[in-house]
Amino acid sequence: MSKVITSRSEDYSQWYNDIVRKANLADHSAVRGCMVIKPYGFGIWENMKSQLDKMFKETGHTNAYFPLFIPKSFLSKEAEHVEGFAKECAVVTHHRLMNDPVSGGVVVDPAARLEEELIVRPTSETIIWNTYRDWINSYRDLPLLINQWANVVRWEMRTRLFLRTAEFLWQEGHTAHATSEEAIQETLTILDLYARFAEEYMAMPVIKGVKSANERFAGAVDTYTIEGLMQDGKALQAGTSHFLGQNFAKAFDVKFLNENQKQEYVWATSWGVSTRLMGGLIMTHSDDQGLVVPPRLAQTQVVIVPIPKPGTEIDEAAEKIMKALKAKGISVKYDTDAKKRPGFKFAEHEMHGIPVRIGIGKRDLENGQVEIARRDTGEKSSHNLESVADHIENLLEEIQNNLFNRALKFRDEHITRVDTFEEFKSILESKGGFLSAHWDGTTETEVKIKELTKATLRCIPLDAEAEEGKCILTGKPSGKRVLFAKAY
Amino acid sequence: MSKVITSRSEDYSQWYNDIVRKANLADHSAVRGCMVIKPYGFGIWENMKSQLDKMFKETGHTNAYFPLFIPKSFLSKEAEHVEGFAKECAVVTHHRLMNDPVSGGVVVDPAARLEEELIVRPTSETIIWNTYRDWINSYRDLPLLINQWANVVRWEMRTRLFLRTAEFLWQEGHTAHATSEEAIQETLTILDLYARFAEEYMAMPVIKGVKSANERFAGAVDTYTIEGLMQDGKALQAGTSHFLGQNFAKAFDVKFLNENQKQEYVWATSWGVSTRLMGGLIMTHSDDQGLVVPPRLAQTQVVIVPIPKPGTEIDEAAEKIMKALKAKGISVKYDTDAKKRPGFKFAEHEMHGIPVRIGIGKRDLENGQVEIARRDTGEKSSHNLESVADHIENLLEEIQNNLFNRALKFRDEHITRVDTFEEFKSILESKGGFLSAHWDGTTETEVKIKELTKATLRCIPLDAEAEEGKCILTGKPSGKRVLFAKAY
Repeated sequence: MSKVITSRSEDYSQWYNDIVRKANLADHSAVRGCMVIKPYGFGIWENMKSQLDKMFKETGHTNAYFPLFIPKSFLSKEAEHVEGFAKECAVVTHHRLMNDPVSGGVVVDPAARLEEELIVRPTSETIIWNTYRDWINSYRDLPLLINQWANVVRWEMRTRLFLRTAEFLWQEGHTAHATSEEAIQETLTILDLYARFAEEYMAMPVIKGVKSANERFAGAVDTYTIEGLMQDGKALQAGTSHFLGQNFAKAFDVKFLNENQKQEYVWATSWGVSTRLMGGLIMTHSDDQGLVVPPRLAQTQVVIVPIPKPGTEIDEAAEKIMKALKAKGISVKYDTDAKKRPGFKFAEHEMHGIPVRIGIGKRDLENGQVEIARRDTGEKSSHNLESVADHIENLLEEIQNNLFNRALKFRDEHITRVDTFEEFKSILESKGGFLSAHWDGTTETEVKIKELTKATLRCIPLDAEAEEGKCILTGKPSGKRVLFAKAY
Repeated sequence: MSKVITSRSEDYSQWYNDIVRKANLADHSAVRGCMVIKPYGFGIWENMKSQLDKMFKETGHTNAYFPLFIPKSFLSKEAEHVEGFAKECAVVTHHRLMNDPVSGGVVVDPAARLEEELIVRPTSETIIWNTYRDWINSYRDLPLLINQWANVVRWEMRTRLFLRTAEFLWQEGHTAHATSEEAIQETLTILDLYARFAEEYMAMPVIKGVKSANERFAGAVDTYTIEGLMQDGKALQAGTSHFLGQNFAKAFDVKFLNENQKQEYVWATSWGVSTRLMGGLIMTHSDDQGLVVPPRLAQTQVVIVPIPKPGTEIDEAAEKIMKALKAKGISVKYDTDAKKRPGFKFAEHEMHGIPVRIGIGKRDLENGQVEIARRDTGEKSSHNLESVADHIENLLEEIQNNLFNRALKFRDEHITRVDTFEEFKSILESKGGFLSAHWDGTTETEVKIKELTKATLRCIPLDAEAEEGKCILTGKPSGKRVLFAKAY
């Protein structure tokens, strides 16, 4: 912990990279664009995953697993889908290497060329709907509510750890329904679930909305999104839920016999969140001392540091506290490393974002006290040894709420209503955040705004009120405000 | 459930395929050699995974994630490893597709050829040890005890669902140690953990042993294995744990400063089990009525069937039983589908291997009784409604034990000591199972035996007793018996 990280004000982007590296979350790998998720970072992702998985199962979904590879021809079956996904992808063309007598290494065996190239899945609609054709015959087989936890690959030219990597981990839900209404309901159920997870577990406030046609998932009828706001004023698309209509059912000929004995195409949804959430988590809460992890997702919620080092009395007090905390289901570690000084340990645990630190010193102990430090505010206080577990149980809740409220306040202060294009550009550059503005509803205008300002249309909020207005760029009439922002 | 499955005696291989398909465990996919794991099968795999993950964590391991792709040159760095893994693999050569004006589909963009081809990981030693070089500097960084849950690809020409597929799911542990002794100890700790999991959860007895040089993992100093025995008398390698010596540390230049301030190469282990275990589970216990799942891995441990159909009194009794079972942590479902007759449901739940079925009929209820059927033995008995939950709690334990003991008895009856090659061949063809025989210790003899009989040397059991004898093939001296068998 000798090196301090770059501050946010100095270089936000470098600050982000420093946190990811120095809090042991992830690393670049030898393969361009692919990351290594380190044990500490993976532990946080595992907590996210296990909570999301629980929520999926509570809403009737089950997990399954579909192939990593997609035959090239599948991608062409849905016209828009191929435009969105077939372009930058990993293509498997051969299935064998052979010794190279020249180099002494191995080379691709030209005789082992595949008849049809395979694409490493960028998303699995095609392979899954090709499978659903065999699984769905009648309305009795519906709904089919399936989720998959998997790795996917999209060949990105410019990558950033967690935020944009060639390979990433995600979950992708793929559901099949008998009616359009039921599929739309599923899309919205999942959108709510994602928003609940983001706010209650990640303590990251999000805006629920629908994407414009231009930002829609390739192959969807409607794409719903949750959008967060990072500390630098940029938006982050944190999860999407798509109503796919009958597009994939038609592309893969998936029909069912309805209750009236008629053949109909099946209605579909798909939805996903990814390791990108780790980026959102970091950028929503962390500070110039390092990572800040909300208690509900922390691997270690409490760390105990002996001051200046372990010893019989301090060990006994630590054991007692640990026992009481564990009985409450709170995860706690006792940092007994005798080679590191307390100050060094403090910095290290701050860097890792452990929500609560307990310092136990001899003098404090004589007074029946321990020192408690909050990671979110940096506040320290003394507390009675006897009731410390109850106190910490409440404190963890308080920290979770404080992180959410702090982020919510920041987010709300960074939604600015603008009515002219001058104002739009000026606020975007000076303050950033979401710009709530009127838009004429055309892709042409949306694209022009992006070209001129780099701001993208994040979403049309679900709770947007009807309001007569004029498009900030074209002056054409608009019935409600939408949100623009620069985004990750 | 109209079609009955093929019986084991009629066609064992077809029986296996029928179970996998009709119990909704897995399916072939549109991609050659890649399977779709269906929700019911995936639920059993999830139970296995979660128990194994718990056991890994209890023994000090943490999870992480490494890239799917391995640069081609990495595979050549460890001489034996490349021989074992570089040959049949999925090779990514391009990163873009483009529209094909001729076909209207998409074709590989020749301009997007990768400078160096990427291999879809067949196993991750190389990419992980290339990463460990940055993570390990001093003895203080050791041991490093890391596991990864991932998909891997090995281009298999002849595939069977779960047992041998091009893509499969697995966990791979990769640990780094300061001494050879500690690494060997880790290898054996994991071997024990695997054996414990196989026996206590899968109810599958296994023999722990070490592989001959010929069957060793490519790049290992020693490969330890757990070997199960399937009902057709063939062995199944169910998990392996490798002591890798300093081979990968040398190939990737991973050194550490030891306590005496000297640079040393790091010692390594790797170990894994895969979705192949699902094949082992099926073939150890299932019968001609379908799948049999040990209670500890069953998604649904108890199913309640109303006879002939739901109704107020029966529903109330079912609710009461469910509440009592759930309070004991037992998973239970009430099959209220009014469209299916009880007999049909019975067959369906038998096919899925649900350990216990409770039938509730009106007449039984009048006598305060329900009918309980065990999946393992098919036995039915009446039981008092009041104490049914306690009874079932014990019954599930009894079924778990019975499955293990039954499989153990079968396995032990199928280990035959043979002293001549004639006997070896005759028992192999008539009875199958493990042949405990003397072997002269050479690869040459081992390979010849395989050529002549198709039996492979499964392992040298860890508990093999010293015994003077003569090799069954060459008559040369041997100090202990080893186990041969035909194998999956």
